[in-house]
Amino acid sequence: MNKIIKAKDYSIEFGPLLDSNFQNLLTKNYSNSKKIILVDENTHEFCLEYLITNYAELADAEVMLLPEGEENKVMEVCFQVWEALSEYKVSRKDLIINLGGGVVTDMGGFIASIYKRGIDFINIPTSLLAMVDASIGGKTGIDLGSYKNQLGVFSNPKAIFIDESFLHTLPEEEKLNGFAEMIKHGLVKNINHFKKLVPIEKGKINLDLIYDSVSIKNEIVLADPNENNERKKLNFGHTFGHAIEGFFLESENQLKHGHAVALGILCETYLSYLKGKIDIAIYDFIHQIIISNFELISIREEDYDAIINLMQQDKKNQGNKILCVLLTEIGQCEFDQEISRDEIIEVLKKVLS
Amino acid sequence: MNKIIKAKDYSIEFGPLLDSNFQNLLTKNYSNSKKIILVDENTHEFCLEYLITNYAELADAEVMLLPEGEENKVMEVCFQVWEALSEYKVSRKDLIINLGGGVVTDMGGFIASIYKRGIDFINIPTSLLAMVDASIGGKTGIDLGSYKNQLGVFSNPKAIFIDESFLHTLPEEEKLNGFAEMIKHGLVKNINHFKKLVPIEKGKINLDLIYDSVSIKNEIVLADPNENNERKKLNFGHTFGHAIEGFFLESENQLKHGHAVALGILCETYLSYLKGKIDIAIYDFIHQIIISNFELISIREEDYDAIINLMQQDKKNQGNKILCVLLTEIGQCEFDQEISRDEIIEVLKKVLS
Repeated sequence: MNKIIKAKDYSIEFGPLLDSNFQNLLTKNYSNSKKIILVDENTHEFCLEYLITNYAELADAEVMLLPEGEENKVMEVCFQVWEALSEYKVSRKDLIINLGGGVVTDMGGFIASIYKRGIDFINIPTSLLAMVDASIGGKTGIDLGSYKNQLGVFSNPKAIFIDESFLHTLPEEEKLNGFAEMIKHGLVKNINHFKKLVPIEKGKINLDLIYDSVSIKNEIVLADPNENNERKKLNFGHTFGHAIEGFFLESENQLKHGHAVALGILCETYLSYLKGKIDIAIYDFIHQIIISNFELISIREEDYDAIINLMQQDKKNQGNKILCVLLTEIGQCEFDQEISRDEIIEVLKKVLS
Repeated sequence: MNKIIKAKDYSIEFGPLLDSNFQNLLTKNYSNSKKIILVDENTHEFCLEYLITNYAELADAEVMLLPEGEENKVMEVCFQVWEALSEYKVSRKDLIINLGGGVVTDMGGFIASIYKRGIDFINIPTSLLAMVDASIGGKTGIDLGSYKNQLGVFSNPKAIFIDESFLHTLPEEEKLNGFAEMIKHGLVKNINHFKKLVPIEKGKINLDLIYDSVSIKNEIVLADPNENNERKKLNFGHTFGHAIEGFFLESENQLKHGHAVALGILCETYLSYLKGKIDIAIYDFIHQIIISNFELISIREEDYDAIINLMQQDKKNQGNKILCVLLTEIGQCEFDQEISRDEIIEVLKKVLS
């Protein structure tokens, strides 16, 4: 019997897909619907056949291949999918299944939510990042130039199925990608989750830890779905993280989202110390965990302006103030904390020089 | 004292803008927000100055000019606006004011609802069509090729202000554009409204009639905001209407939306007769009213396939069935009525030959 977490008006189910409610859902709710499966290159190669051979309802599904990578989470790709959906005469009663990592669940959810003012979609995340974060909580969206997730809507899937066996289709580096978000869930809300993650060897995650991490996120999202208060905590590490990710997005040295968030966590933890919220010992401890899992990078001083410019675009800001989440201890934080240009520069010099 | 209709979580106010709650809203809720005013060429010339000179809060608003016409209600234009909003560092707490006709309120609402997963917007409709229909009810969206409103979201403005004095900035033909939707509101739901409209001379509409028409639409929308049942009635005239409008959209002989809907009403009224729902006398009566306000057009037999193809894309359809709203008497109708290819052809031959 698979474990289930109840989200707002849908369920998140953990365990083998074949033991899940997926079959029942297809038969009961979508027997007369067209099914469209959105995949990326990896899931097209390693996961799609599993779905199609195990579910007769999906035998004649339309499969649409999205180009791999964050640099393709853009309007041009959505536009092509919308044109294809129109060509296939996909109607409001039909179903999109997002089979992939965070790019597929973010962009696929957005595509479904905008097409004909919204058709149903189901998320089957296949990367750790998508399992513990991207596919959960109803945030869908795409990037606009270097501005991460600048366009999107809040829109919930009809169900999420988390089957850890899909993780085996991924390279190790991709697993680490999601680990940063799990650490974040522990840091902002739950010291016990954080303690369980500390001794984990690089990328060795099990379903129980994923379940814990999703529980934390889901609890926060239920309390504040549209990010007016509590949910802002989940942006810890993302003020610096998104700016760093955006800065490298159009370069050759692209950073994985999780890698950028790990660096962002480090920066914002140091900032928390700098602003007198935590002791340096806490920073040192978190620093140790981050560097044992993620590689540090250097940002040149001449690029600080570009990074700060990206931070000014952050969705959490109000007016011209840059707002940030700061730790007050492990498992607790404060949001809407104003930070200055000088502080940002001091942090970058210390942490990413 | 202006009249007010309460919609879901916002108000629709009727009367002079200067007597309205607009000033109060700007001062109270948006004093620290950037204001962006979206205009079209007509409102840029005739309405914008009125706003800017009367409201000190708008003196340094950013004004963005949208290209005129339905053929510009497309993603490319939205994309340019999103880039400009990003450049101006518009944040989640800022405000978009849509000052214009249906294209501006449809597209402006969409732009606001997608940007950073949604920022506040206010509609100040300046055309009759936008006042009685487009700006009301939370449907925002844009076209995709010939497919009308194929992309969009349900999203409500924070307020709507209907000031009939803006109608004087419009040519007569543009006023007629909204008249078709008013007739529709009468036909599908309220015989008294219809009776009041029958003797109206071309385009001579007053604020009381606008108020009545909006009341009817608002009542239907409140009962079924996401168009699962009752709201489908408002699509009367739009199965044929949208297909006809879409067919001519990329040609030189573009039809105004209201003109296409008037023709659609005529077609679907005849269809209602053809399927035994109403007497021919009702069709004849409605025919008389439509042709005394709108010009009939001819559709060539070789174009029927293209029209039917567009109808198959209609958002109301399920699977491969084309569904339509049919009148059962004046003021009443049935939705989700399946219609056949042969019936469509018979109607086009009779009504638009």
